[in-house]
Amino acid sequence: MNAPSPLDRVRVVLARPSHPGNIGAAARAMKTMGLAELWLVSPASFPDPVAQARASGAGDVLAAARVVDTLAAALADTVFAAGLTARRRDVSLPCLGPRAAAAEIVDWRARGKVALVFGNEAGGLTNEELGLCALPVTIPANPEYASLNLGAAVQLMCYELRMAAMGEGVRAIARHAPEPATHDEIEGFFGHLEAAIVASGFLDPARPRRLMPKLRRLFGRARLEKEEVAILRGILASFGTAGNK
Amino acid sequence: MNAPSPLDRVRVVLARPSHPGNIGAAARAMKTMGLAELWLVSPASFPDPVAQARASGAGDVLAAARVVDTLAAALADTVFAAGLTARRRDVSLPCLGPRAAAAEIVDWRARGKVALVFGNEAGGLTNEELGLCALPVTIPANPEYASLNLGAAVQLMCYELRMAAMGEGVRAIARHAPEPATHDEIEGFFGHLEAAIVASGFLDPARPRRLMPKLRRLFGRARLEKEEVAILRGILASFGTAGNK
Repeated sequence: MNAPSPLDRVRVVLARPSHPGNIGAAARAMKTMGLAELWLVSPASFPDPVAQARASGAGDVLAAARVVDTLAAALADTVFAAGLTARRRDVSLPCLGPRAAAAEIVDWRARGKVALVFGNEAGGLTNEELGLCALPVTIPANPEYASLNLGAAVQLMCYELRMAAMGEGVRAIARHAPEPATHDEIEGFFGHLEAAIVASGFLDPARPRRLMPKLRRLFGRARLEKEEVAILRGILASFGTAGNK
Repeated sequence: MNAPSPLDRVRVVLARPSHPGNIGAAARAMKTMGLAELWLVSPASFPDPVAQARASGAGDVLAAARVVDTLAAALADTVFAAGLTARRRDVSLPCLGPRAAAAEIVDWRARGKVALVFGNEAGGLTNEELGLCALPVTIPANPEYASLNLGAAVQLMCYELRMAAMGEGVRAIARHAPEPATHDEIEGFFGHLEAAIVASGFLDPARPRRLMPKLRRLFGRARLEKEEVAILRGILASFGTAGNK
């Protein structure tokens, strides 16, 4: 990408891609829609000549791709992540279609890096991986055959992002919006919360009752801000001091 | 396709496809969006095991594909055809983007068979082929690299057709919304929270620092559910027991 793109703060993350051809197809799909930043989490094979061939004219996107070991590492400096999922893992999760999700992702760019996460070809994102994404996104596919090719799914989502970005001329992004918490800050809070409620006896690690997923879902909907994480951790620390020392 | 589809009168036509893999990818893309009728104009190789492999679970679409010699033959019984073109061949032609084109195509289904025509991978549709289409359609791609893979372009267009057929894409994905907390339940939580953080020493009533308004704003954004209020109050109670009794 030579010219600055309206989508240059959107990162595409492929979690554990099995087929190098799909990595190349994703790079090509991204570049046609003006996206340039590709991260690969534990790819089965990369670099790979098959990826290069399928990338066609998007070899620059492949060449600049970052390879990391975990999804958490790919999201560490992002302020918002949307994860594609073919089905509802948790019936109570709010789940957007591509168009509404693209509008939200495009809005988040004003605050920092955002990520669009795609799972492995065979199994999609694990529940744990999806838990790291604030927004689950489902493509409204044919219920009888909903299996989009990975590269095709990337094409479709990047297209919606481009459409959303092109249509935002009139969209007013709040200029004094509070600073969002980073992924690492939010994970730090969840770690602190979990340790605190284990210490207080509310969470029994031997019988977790899906408590942490429920709490992640609650605070995920709120889209925590940096100051709020500091307040919540201050509250937890105050309880810890009173209760455990 | 087993069930009748709202898109069963929309035919996808690939004109002179060079790569059998793209034929398979197109079949798969179609089926994921509920389209079933594929026509191939003078394919370089068909049937072909590569097409079969890339079609994945859409082998039925491939098996039912019609092969003809000319685009005119593929359009003979249609009442409307839209043709994809990367650029405007004739500035006087009205040229729509995928979303507007999909709306028009979906409207035309009421009158008969309609076709969505894609050109050869290397050169797209010829001027003569495009002349057989009532509506030229251009995907608003990155001007620096507008070369979508054929299968990806089919995916994108079929997605827009499905969104248009489903009702402008604004349909919310049905879900069983969890029961929201009542106003009284939420106020009960805030009262509990305030008492707990006063007791823990985090909130000094003489110098409240707008803490409660900030916490109200955070939990207000989350739109608390009944079960979540119970969990949060359980957590507070667990801290209270540890800390204050």
